[in-house]
Amino acid sequence: MSDQCLFCGIVAGSVPSVKVAEDDTTCAFMDINPATDGHLLVVPKRHSKDLLEIPADDLTAVTLSAQRLAKTVVGELGADGVNLLNCCGSAAWQSVFHFHLHVIPRYADKAKDRLTLPWTPEVAGDRDTIAALGARLSACRD
Amino acid sequence: MSDQCLFCGIVAGSVPSVKVAEDDTTCAFMDINPATDGHLLVVPKRHSKDLLEIPADDLTAVTLSAQRLAKTVVGELGADGVNLLNCCGSAAWQSVFHFHLHVIPRYADKAKDRLTLPWTPEVAGDRDTIAALGARLSACRD
Repeated sequence: MSDQCLFCGIVAGSVPSVKVAEDDTTCAFMDINPATDGHLLVVPKRHSKDLLEIPADDLTAVTLSAQRLAKTVVGELGADGVNLLNCCGSAAWQSVFHFHLHVIPRYADKAKDRLTLPWTPEVAGDRDTIAALGARLSACRD
Repeated sequence: MSDQCLFCGIVAGSVPSVKVAEDDTTCAFMDINPATDGHLLVVPKRHSKDLLEIPADDLTAVTLSAQRLAKTVVGELGADGVNLLNCCGSAAWQSVFHFHLHVIPRYADKAKDRLTLPWTPEVAGDRDTIAALGARLSACRD
C-alpha cells in the first residue's frame, strides 16, 4: 500500500467511496466522474502502478470481477452494452497511478450516453506499414 | 468456430491477417484500421460473441496475452502508454461479434496519436445518483 495513493485509500476505507463489490484480491467502486450511469472502476487491493507492473494473478482477478460487473450492469441497470477500458500511462489518459479497469455501461438512448469513439476506424491503415509493425512485434515474442 | 465469423477465419488462416502472437488459446493480429501505429487485437481462438459470453479461462488468457503485448509495444515501438479496450455490444461500438481486446499503443507525440478521450471526466457526477446506482449494483452481487 502506498500512503499517497488515492485508490489504496479507497481500498483501506480511509477515503470515502461507493463500493459495489469486494473480494480478497479486488475492490470495485463507483467512478465519481461517470461517463454514463453505472460507470465503475475495479482495482487490485495490492498496489500496482499500471498494466505494465500488475502481477498476472491480480490482473486476472480484476478482469474476472469486471466481467461479473459487466453482466450486472446489463442485468440490473438495463445497459445495452459495456466498455472495459484500461489506461496505462499519462499518454493513455491514466491519471491515478494505481491500476484500474473502467467498466462503462453503454446505452442506446443517446440522452443517457454521449460517449464518442476515440478514433476514426473507417480510415484504412497503410498495409505495408501495418505489416512492418506486425513483423517487429512478432519478432519480440517470448 | 463460426463459418460466418471474420475473426474465426483469421484464427483458422482462411482470412489473411498480420499475426503477431499465438498460443494454444489466443491469437493476436494487427488491426487493419489502426487508431495508432501498432494497434492490434487479441482474440480467443474459441468463438465467443462478447464479454458477457466468453468463458473465464479464455478471458484470462486473452488478458494476459494483451498485457505481454502491451509490454512489447512499449519496449519495441517506443509507445509512451497503452490502452486496452473491449467493446461489448453494438451500443458500445462492437462491430465484429467475436470477443476481442484492443491493444492501442499511445504516443506523447500528437502527430502520431490523435485519439480523443470518449467522455468528459471533469464533469462531476451527482453524488446521490452515483450512490443510488452503486447500491443497486452492490445488492446484485453473487
